[in-house]
Formats: sequence, C-alpha cells, structure tokens
Amino acid sequence: MRFVDVIDKKAEGLALGREEIDAMIQGYTDGDIPDYQMSAMCMAIRLKGMNAQETAWMTDAMMHSGDTADLSDLRGIKLDKHSTGGVGDTTTLVVAPLVAACGGTVAKMSGRGLGHTGGTLDKLESVPGTSVEISLERFKDIVRENGVAVIGQSGNLVPADKKIYALRDVTATVRSIPLIASSIMSKKLASGADAIVLDVKTGSGAFMREKEEAFALAKEMVSIGNAMGRKVRALVTDMNQPLGMAVGNALEVREAVQLLSGMIPETDPLYRVCILLGVQMMRMGGLAQTDAEAEKKLKNAIHDGSGLQRLRRMIELQGGDGSYISMDRIDELVQVRKKIDVTAQEDGFVSSMDAEEIGTAAQMLGAGRAKKDDTIDPAVGLIMQVRCGYEVHKGSPLCTLYVNDDRALEEVIAKVRNAVKTDLQPKPVNDMVYGIVTEADL
Amino acid sequence: MRFVDVIDKKAEGLALGREEIDAMIQGYTDGDIPDYQMSAMCMAIRLKGMNAQETAWMTDAMMHSGDTADLSDLRGIKLDKHSTGGVGDTTTLVVAPLVAACGGTVAKMSGRGLGHTGGTLDKLESVPGTSVEISLERFKDIVRENGVAVIGQSGNLVPADKKIYALRDVTATVRSIPLIASSIMSKKLASGADAIVLDVKTGSGAFMREKEEAFALAKEMVSIGNAMGRKVRALVTDMNQPLGMAVGNALEVREAVQLLSGMIPETDPLYRVCILLGVQMMRMGGLAQTDAEAEKKLKNAIHDGSGLQRLRRMIELQGGDGSYISMDRIDELVQVRKKIDVTAQEDGFVSSMDAEEIGTAAQMLGAGRAKKDDTIDPAVGLIMQVRCGYEVHKGSPLCTLYVNDDRALEEVIAKVRNAVKTDLQPKPVNDMVYGIVTEADL
Repeated sequence: MRFVDVIDKKAEGLALGREEIDAMIQGYTDGDIPDYQMSAMCMAIRLKGMNAQETAWMTDAMMHSGDTADLSDLRGIKLDKHSTGGVGDTTTLVVAPLVAACGGTVAKMSGRGLGHTGGTLDKLESVPGTSVEISLERFKDIVRENGVAVIGQSGNLVPADKKIYALRDVTATVRSIPLIASSIMSKKLASGADAIVLDVKTGSGAFMREKEEAFALAKEMVSIGNAMGRKVRALVTDMNQPLGMAVGNALEVREAVQLLSGMIPETDPLYRVCILLGVQMMRMGGLAQTDAEAEKKLKNAIHDGSGLQRLRRMIELQGGDGSYISMDRIDELVQVRKKIDVTAQEDGFVSSMDAEEIGTAAQMLGAGRAKKDDTIDPAVGLIMQVRCGYEVHKGSPLCTLYVNDDRALEEVIAKVRNAVKTDLQPKPVNDMVYGIVTEADL
Repeated sequence: MRFVDVIDKKAEGLALGREEIDAMIQGYTDGDIPDYQMSAMCMAIRLKGMNAQETAWMTDAMMHSGDTADLSDLRGIKLDKHSTGGVGDTTTLVVAPLVAACGGTVAKMSGRGLGHTGGTLDKLESVPGTSVEISLERFKDIVRENGVAVIGQSGNLVPADKKIYALRDVTATVRSIPLIASSIMSKKLASGADAIVLDVKTGSGAFMREKEEAFALAKEMVSIGNAMGRKVRALVTDMNQPLGMAVGNALEVREAVQLLSGMIPETDPLYRVCILLGVQMMRMGGLAQTDAEAEKKLKNAIHDGSGLQRLRRMIELQGGDGSYISMDRIDELVQVRKKIDVTAQEDGFVSSMDAEEIGTAAQMLGAGRAKKDDTIDPAVGLIMQVRCGYEVHKGSPLCTLYVNDDRALEEVIAKVRNAVKTDLQPKPVNDMVYGIVTEADL
C-alpha cells in the first residue's frame, strides 16, 4: 500500500478501509508518513468527510497509538465529562463534585486551555498548591476516597492526536467533524471512562459556528462511543455568549463555589447546563432511575453542601489549600490591582455577544495563553454584568475587568464594547440548551 | 497575512487574491512556506478548484519564480508546441521541422519523459551525438540558421514548478486542472514563445481520462495564454491507443523519419494529428491565411523532403550525426538482440487498448524511466501491428517487441496481451481528434 494512493482514494470521496486507516495513524505516529502527506490527507478528510465506520476506526487507531489508562480496578461505572470548549464554561468544577456527592465515580482527565477558551486544569491550579500532574495510581486513590479527581493527561496518552492536532492547527484542517470527533473521542476513550457526557458548544465562541454542525459532531461522537462499547450522551448548548458570568481562572472557580454554595438561582444558564450534564452522568452511571430523580439528587447536593465539600476535598487531595473553597475565603484568589467597569455607550437591549471576542479579551488581560508556553495570571479576567436580552443604559456597566497588567487595556475595553451589541428593541434570546443526543438518536 | 488563513479560504471554496497567490508561490519557492502547508493547499485546490483569474495569477507567479528565456531578438513569431503526454507521440519530431521548412520560427524547450510517456529529449538523444543541453545563445543561433531547435529546460526556469510538482506527485494532488494548467503554462510562457499549440490527450494513456476534463484543461490553458498576451490553441486528441505505431525512442525517431519521407499515408492518425498541430502553428505564426493553405504547405514540405532536411540539420547543429536521419541509415539505430511478436490468442476485432499499459510495457523493456535516474536503452521498445478496429486472428501479431534485456519479458508480453482487447464483432472506433479550442471558444 502506497500512502499516496490512500490519499487519492479519500480525495476521490471513497471510504477508507480499516487497514488503510491503521497504517495511516501508525505510520504518522512513527514518523514513517511525512507531515506533507498527512496534511494533504487531513485536507481531503476535511473536504470529503469520513463515514461513521471510518471515524470509529480512526478513533480506535488513535486511541491505541500510545498508552491507555486502565481504570478497571475502580469501583462502579467510571464517569467522564468533556466540553468542546467555550467561554466562561465552569461546568466541570460544578458537575464533577456534584455527581461524586451523589455516589458517582468521576475520573476525569483534562486538557490545557488554548486560545480564547479556558482550561479546567488552569482553573484548578489557580487554587494555591493544587497539582494536576499526578500519577495514575495516586489519581485512582483520590477517586477511591473522594469519588472525584481531575488531572492532566499523562505523557504518552494518544500521541497520534498530539501530532495530528499540531499539524491540523497550521494547515487549516481543524474544522472537520470526523477529525474533531476522533481527536476528542480517542482521548476520552484512552482515559478509561465507561460513560462520557459531552457538551458540544455552538455559536460565536465555539469551533462549531452552526447548530447543525454541532448536532452532527455530537451524533458522530455518540456513534463512536457506541461502536467502541462505551456509553456516550451529548448536549448541544449555546455559546453565543459566555455560559457563566465569570471569564478567568480564579474568577471561574469563585463562580463554581458560589453555585455549589447555593448562591446562584436555578434559572441561571450555568446552573441549568450543570444540572443537565449531571443528569446525563447520573443516568449513565445508574445513579438515578429517572431524569427527575437525578435532578433532585443533584440539587440536594447543592443545598446540603456535599458537592462543595467534594470539590474542597479534591483540591486538598491534589495538594491544594482547600480552605479557599468557601465563600469566606474565595475572594482572596481574585485580588487584583484594579477593577474597571466597561460601560454601555448608549441605551438599548443587549441583542448579541461575540463570546470568542470576550474570551480573547480575558486572555489579553493574562487569563489565557496565546502561545503554548505563555504564563497565566490566575486572578485576572472579567465578570460580565449583562446577558443577551438585558436592558442597558448609557454609562451602565457591561462587564468588570479584573486587571493586574494594563498594557493592553485600551484594546481590551474596545474588544469588549465591540463584542456586546445592543439594539433599541429587545430581541428573542436563544435557549442555552438546543438538545441532547443519545444512543437512541443514532 | 498568515498562510494558514489563505489555506482555509481556499478550503472554504473562496477565490484567492493576487497578493495571496504571489505570496504563496514566492513563499514556497523560497522555503518560507513548509511542504505540509503547501500540500494542504494543493489538496484544497484539487478539491475546490480555482477560477480562470486565480489560475492566470498562479501561472504568472510561477513563471516569474525564476529566470525566463528572452527570445525577443529572434525574428518573427516564436512558435512552440506542447503535448500533455501520450504514448507513441512522435509529433514534435515531425511538426517542428515541417513548420520550420514552411518559414516558421520554432524554438522549443522540452521536458524529460517519466513513467509511461516518452520524452522528446530522450528521443533526440537516441541519435548518436545529439545534445539537448545547449546554452540559450547557441539555441537561438541554431534557430536563426535552421528555423528550429529543441532543447531541455535550463537550470533555473520556473523553480516553483519543480518544487510544487515534486510535492504534488507524492500527495495525490496531480489531478487538478488549475494545477496542471499553471504547471504547463508557466513553463511554456517562461520559455519565451509568442504562440503555443497544445495537444491535450485524453483516454486510457493520458492524465485526463475523460474527454470533458481534457476540454476543460484545454480551455483553461488557452485562457491563461490569452490573459498573459500570448496566442494559444489546443487540440484535444485521443489517447485510447498509442498515437503512432512505434513506442520507444529510436523507434519513434524512425517513425518520424518515415513520415517526413512520405512513407506514411495521409489517413494515418499520427500523420493527421501532425498536420492539424502544424496548421494551428502556421495560422498563429502568420504563415498561412487559411487552414487549407497551411495544410497544403505542410504536405509540400513532406513531399519535397524539406521537413526531413530541417530535422537532419537540427540534429547536426545540436552535435548529432545527421546521416542517421534518412531511410538509408535509420534502421541502424533500432538494432536489438531480438524481436519478438506478441500474438493474438483468439480471432476477433480489436475493441480497445490500454495505452498506459502499452507505454509501461515499453518502459519495462528499457525505453523509459520508472525513476528519475534510470538509464534508457534507445533502441528498445515496441511496434504495434494493430489499431482499434483491426481484425486479428489467433496467432497473428499484435505487436513486435524490440528487446535487448529480456529479464521482464514474460511480464511485458502479458501486459501487452492484456492491454489489447478483442471482441467478436467490430466496434465503432474513436476519432483521433475530438476538437480544437481557440481564443474564440473562451
């Protein structure tokens, strides 16, 4: 088999066979297939697609390109959660402890944030002392004791994805449903969970700009999980504005603590999405017979503080100072040199937001990385003061910036102002949740 | 401008701007754009296409990526001829001297043969002493004296094409009309001719398998020439069987000598295509007022031997032994250890041929290169004894192999037998010429 012929086959729009896909992933991981051939293949896949079977084979080949985590010696159904990346998405820090408090086993491996979306690992590290680089054995011990732990992916998990992703990033081949699906699912499957809930974001702040694309990606990933003998459900949720009000590392931890302390109303979008994600995990984990029962248990874990307790204990077991995880001390993590309100320039109603621009504004303040080795300032970021549909008046705050380094301040303010559009008349607001994809939808 | 964004633009099916195309060609030639980005771009172009304007800009950028030949100090309209590559295509050796004999200025730069198609340079070199590596000044002197010369492309002509073609060859991006058109036309334009006739082959032995593709390519190239201020006409001709009967280097020179000596009938396909190509060159060169006048002059140059005389003189001026270029001595160039007839295995009519397979068979005998640095045996190859539509009987010869090295003989015989299909009933035969594309067709 000459790889050039396999590329040609895909460029002709034909489906690849299992051996062809295995040879491609193994060959590229081993360095036998050069970058220039793989990038041509990725472009052919972006433009010609892959069917469900090809995508499943590709995921399987990638998953087995390196080590896989064996969680089989943990009790019960191992649950995981993944978001395709959004702005102000603090759900992991809320849902994972809540499900653990309800008896679930949540063993989550996570990635770093890059670009305009924040990473859960960076948020955890904003609590002093917390480590996310922990051995697999220690990770499992923490899950055994506390029901939940969140760590970074270890050295040789899915090396194929690391290499392919780096190539896709510079060859305009990121936007491809089979490539995104196999990238995400190979990592999730290699992480060893039995059941995975996915949060597929769509809108201005997400990779999937269109709702239809997001549903297609969701379906693809549920289908892969199914083919690989795992339970997978996917929410498709709105990312036309930040999910929570906080964008920034410690700021988002604070919002999670607020939510787990019962300080955020049930109608809040972050609250609602957390509960919905939690319900899927509870059902797949066999922790509730109905959605209603799952929801009730999760809300209970907020009211009785058991969810917050799990988050605090997790931070402690991962080496952090758990005392910050309370309404008494959490504000200490978001002390900054100055807070600046960005104000509305005219009266009106918020008609739309560009979540990506808001995420980029927070990144420019130091909350995120533009390049892989940039350092993060955990305290900085922004708190939105409005959501879509809110009425604003000239001079009223759109958001509050948390600033230590004001070198890019002018640009950040302009970016936020530009990202929040107002209209004279109120417009209907998108629902935060567009739907749920389960095995039954395949 | 980030090149990854330019790739994305093309992947989205959008047209690129002139600066983007210039930056791409310059950047890739200079090594600033890496192979893996260029191959993704080539695949995006293969699958999303380029419009006529983009293709013209790309051709222009490629043409100016290195040196260009200045032929302006040669008298009259400089004529060139190019074939997209076929099997048994001896037209250059016939048409170029004929047009020169009719008063034309034919300054042709040519490429080497690779794969199953033969190269004019290799055919010329089969005449002892003949050199195709000649300085531009000497080349022009020969054209001044004899009206015709054929040399290899010199060092730094269109370096962008060399690099892009090598990449396309291993990334399944050869089959793209804008990429083929810009590759051919950039070389033709850089070679300095004012008017170019193209022979676009279609069929089993050509890159363009489908007639519609061949017409699209022809139109694209005429359009590019037009945009760049040159005259271009294109024939679309059949390559479902070898054009001439001879396939091999000296064997094809012999067929050219036979044709120029008036030994081949006017109804012969090679004869017909040569006259048609010559007519286009005569018209573009202002050497005849009507097609009929051009045809008459060309046939005259066969009958009076002036065409053959030009070929002989060209060989001499390029250092070769011109005495071989006559019916008296030409057979000396095709002396081989043995000649073997491949015979029909049943009665019937030849219904189709696979010209590519026949070309590959000749290549395996030593007439062509599988790899760039393979050496060629000038004497070997094959002479077809049948054409499509011919009646054959069990045991009658399909072709005669000219063999020096019989290591692959069994395979070659099987290949030829397999390439020539027979049927019990005669089938209608494709015309050799499907049409002519001129500026008037744009």
